Amino acid sequence: MAENRKIVVAALPQGKLEESHYDLVTEPVPAPGDGEVLCRTLAVSVDAGARAGLQGSATYAGAPQTGVVMRGSAVARVEASNDASVSVGDIVSCGAGWQDYSVHAARTVERIDYDGDPADFLGVLGGTGLTAYFGLLAVTDPKEGETVMVSTAAGAVGHIVGQLAKIRGCRVVGVTGSEAKNARLVGELGFDGVANYRDGGFRQALKEATPDGVDVYFDNTGGTVLGSALFRMNQGGRISCCGVVSQYDTANPEPGPRGIPGLLVNKRLRMEGFLVFDFADRYGAARAELKDWMASGRLTAWVDEFRGLESAPRAFVDLLAGGNVGKRIVRVSD
Amino acid sequence: MAENRKIVVAALPQGKLEESHYDLVTEPVPAPGDGEVLCRTLAVSVDAGARAGLQGSATYAGAPQTGVVMRGSAVARVEASNDASVSVGDIVSCGAGWQDYSVHAARTVERIDYDGDPADFLGVLGGTGLTAYFGLLAVTDPKEGETVMVSTAAGAVGHIVGQLAKIRGCRVVGVTGSEAKNARLVGELGFDGVANYRDGGFRQALKEATPDGVDVYFDNTGGTVLGSALFRMNQGGRISCCGVVSQYDTANPEPGPRGIPGLLVNKRLRMEGFLVFDFADRYGAARAELKDWMASGRLTAWVDEFRGLESAPRAFVDLLAGGNVGKRIVRVSD
Repeated sequence: MAENRKIVVAALPQGKLEESHYDLVTEPVPAPGDGEVLCRTLAVSVDAGARAGLQGSATYAGAPQTGVVMRGSAVARVEASNDASVSVGDIVSCGAGWQDYSVHAARTVERIDYDGDPADFLGVLGGTGLTAYFGLLAVTDPKEGETVMVSTAAGAVGHIVGQLAKIRGCRVVGVTGSEAKNARLVGELGFDGVANYRDGGFRQALKEATPDGVDVYFDNTGGTVLGSALFRMNQGGRISCCGVVSQYDTANPEPGPRGIPGLLVNKRLRMEGFLVFDFADRYGAARAELKDWMASGRLTAWVDEFRGLESAPRAFVDLLAGGNVGKRIVRVSD
Repeated sequence: MAENRKIVVAALPQGKLEESHYDLVTEPVPAPGDGEVLCRTLAVSVDAGARAGLQGSATYAGAPQTGVVMRGSAVARVEASNDASVSVGDIVSCGAGWQDYSVHAARTVERIDYDGDPADFLGVLGGTGLTAYFGLLAVTDPKEGETVMVSTAAGAVGHIVGQLAKIRGCRVVGVTGSEAKNARLVGELGFDGVANYRDGGFRQALKEATPDGVDVYFDNTGGTVLGSALFRMNQGGRISCCGVVSQYDTANPEPGPRGIPGLLVNKRLRMEGFLVFDFADRYGAARAELKDWMASGRLTAWVDEFRGLESAPRAFVDLLAGGNVGKRIVRVSD
């Protein structure tokens, strides 16, 4: 009988996450019950936000647990179905987590009808692309000629944010922790300016990259990059709060930036947090627009791929250290 | 010849503000030039926000200076006029600062046509009342049945905010640093709950006072009260950032709350700073509504009055220590 390999959370990290916090275990492939489907994982998503789910305090995703399969979005092929709405061979997106096989209620999987690589539904057409789309366009509504700054700019969300801002006619400035990433943002995606937050001259570099200040800041980091952005914001500026990657991989989160709320008052700034799920009723229209931009060459989706389920912990630890360029996935089977 | 007494900033405070940072000096009463008016001060406003103007870094009001008259809004009687648009005897509001007499370009004074005490134009019908009005109603738009929390709730802005929220049909919870103030908020203004931030059980008291969480937080303080509010906010909550009184009277501002931006993301919160001047084109309509509510007994304006120009530094230092209940003014002449 076929085996299911799965990667479980062996221990909750107290400080930095390590590969040793995970175990690879095997079990028999589960059998679907009435109304359920059995999915074979094709690829899983590796997301910085999932690190927050391993913190001591509960997030929107619920309290962390050990001994359970690591959560994660996946694309999969249906291997068996006990529901008329789903057929064997269908390609679906589902919350498989880091394992070869998973069973789901048929109504919880979403069929993918797409000519391209199904793994695009983990990135540009999935959670990260939609996060970029709604977090930028719906939350901040950038106007032509405005300056948009984005942190983790070469990441899964950030590199899409920057390109969407360019499509809106904005000046785009990206922040990463790497000169090589910054060079690619300028050379391959047309970013107008960049700054490296790991460089001692970061504040000065950011200032020089934003000669007209910043109208919209898409914040993936929190912490000191957010603090620096606050000082560059123009009156009436908007900050879209998407994530706090600077604070995920630690047991001791920093305090918030010193300029809050003082600079919010003096500059009449708006900061707004969002979760992409709140826009679920608009996913279809957003995906159609994203596909059009990809087809016309205005939007490039970077995919950063590891191969083999067993590589997932390494792919995640490396992601948290800033190793990825674009959307990181783990290809599990073909 | 009559003398003008004026209170000048003698030294910029490094830590807490003291009366010794001011000097009372006299000079001849100035003479108005062409197009100018001479005003005799009736009352001056004492505002916590003015403390920020004495900080080392520039605020929206410009960089701090010594040797100049302390700034402040005033109501005044026109004693001499070299402009056809203003008559001797007119009652006006103007930026007189802390002095007996001041000269202004006629176009910069605003005539007050009002049956009540002109000093109301320093409080409920002036900057603080309008700040409450726009900062609550325009920035957060509270809905009937929502819970509204306000800090410095017995202050010039706070006690108006709470009453406007009651008029909107909200549940209102006030935070002050005094049991006596809290008792007055409940007993005299109908607040539904209160908590004392100086009490060791503050977080628990706030929790008990907000059993359904907080939908709207009107923040006058920043710092730890803001931090506590963030934990009580409901999903989709709005925070109106009005001021940072916890950070004004110190040389070492605290960092921002630890929950920023993490809690903004998880709870989809919006934080927005504002300055009342941005709503100047709507002052007339707001004042009309505020007057109606006062006339019908739904809105009570608390005034906390010192007498004599020389008492202004004491009135200000005491205000920063939380000594006021309602709008603090200094009555300078009748």
